[in-house]
Amino acid sequence: MSKQLFDHINQYATVSPVEFEEIMRFFELRTARKKEMLMEANTPCTHTYFVLQGCLNMFFPTEKGVERTIQFGIENWWLTDFLSFGNKSSSNYAIQAVEKTRFLSISRGQYDTLLERFPQMEKYFRAIYQIGYGASLNKMRYLQDYSKEDIYFHFTEQFPDFAQRVPQYLIASFLGLTPEYVSEIRAKRRS
Amino acid sequence: MSKQLFDHINQYATVSPVEFEEIMRFFELRTARKKEMLMEANTPCTHTYFVLQGCLNMFFPTEKGVERTIQFGIENWWLTDFLSFGNKSSSNYAIQAVEKTRFLSISRGQYDTLLERFPQMEKYFRAIYQIGYGASLNKMRYLQDYSKEDIYFHFTEQFPDFAQRVPQYLIASFLGLTPEYVSEIRAKRRS
Repeated sequence: MSKQLFDHINQYATVSPVEFEEIMRFFELRTARKKEMLMEANTPCTHTYFVLQGCLNMFFPTEKGVERTIQFGIENWWLTDFLSFGNKSSSNYAIQAVEKTRFLSISRGQYDTLLERFPQMEKYFRAIYQIGYGASLNKMRYLQDYSKEDIYFHFTEQFPDFAQRVPQYLIASFLGLTPEYVSEIRAKRRS
Repeated sequence: MSKQLFDHINQYATVSPVEFEEIMRFFELRTARKKEMLMEANTPCTHTYFVLQGCLNMFFPTEKGVERTIQFGIENWWLTDFLSFGNKSSSNYAIQAVEKTRFLSISRGQYDTLLERFPQMEKYFRAIYQIGYGASLNKMRYLQDYSKEDIYFHFTEQFPDFAQRVPQYLIASFLGLTPEYVSEIRAKRRS
């Protein structure tokens, strides 16, 4: 039993240990090795993922052939292409493990059944998506309002452990910067 | 009774006409005139809004003193600063009517009670936020991947009625462009 998901659900909704045992049967516990692909771009997004340990990266290949990170999933974070997962369309995104990652995986069919059987899970996901939606509007604000340099330093100050753990080129990509630019402003700050 | 919200809820969840009558008591039907402010920046976001007719604009004043639109709310769209609404913190955003707008308004306290009394509304909002969250990740992808010109024409082709209705400078702001730049590429396309 994953105590981690149990605790996370109970932050936002109420499930008993007995109910949770049944809830866990809808999930598959998986491990991905570093750089393993969970989903390729231009395929339907059939699963959503809850990260227990490690880090997942959702990115898209740009028209210029570069990979751009749109979202990271770290401990206690849900990650998927929610539109494709919801309407079963093909996704523009790929999902890959940044490092060795343990996660729970649930298919669209199982997710639908889970929500029918356990209405508390509607409450849980409503709260999770409400926060995720709000946070993504804020990220858009940063991208539009801050200078490139401020975006980088604001992010690394807000998430210092994360900035240590994840390769610089991925953080640069997530923030819409080039790795060269990040090296440059880091060197400038050090000197 | 607002048939429009009734129909919208029943696209994603199931409420009977009798239940809906009770649900409607949690809402206030309001009208804002063009340019009326619903919320000022740097105050807590106490309400969330469902647009019946018209258009709301959520924006933030930038450090350079310009107003940047982060989200529009048109017919059947929910609009608020979901983070501030959720955790009662001060919001960076302001909300204003672009044109004369009829909308339903619900306070945080009423929203909490509504969700407790009608668990179907958890399902409804879960579905709404799942789509909103997914769509905002896609908007980030457009902003990062497309050229400025493509962003503008992609948007106006996808939402032609909206592009007609809303002042160009607001659409420019929403897409992170300057009004001058939009005038320029429109003139170029016409010639």
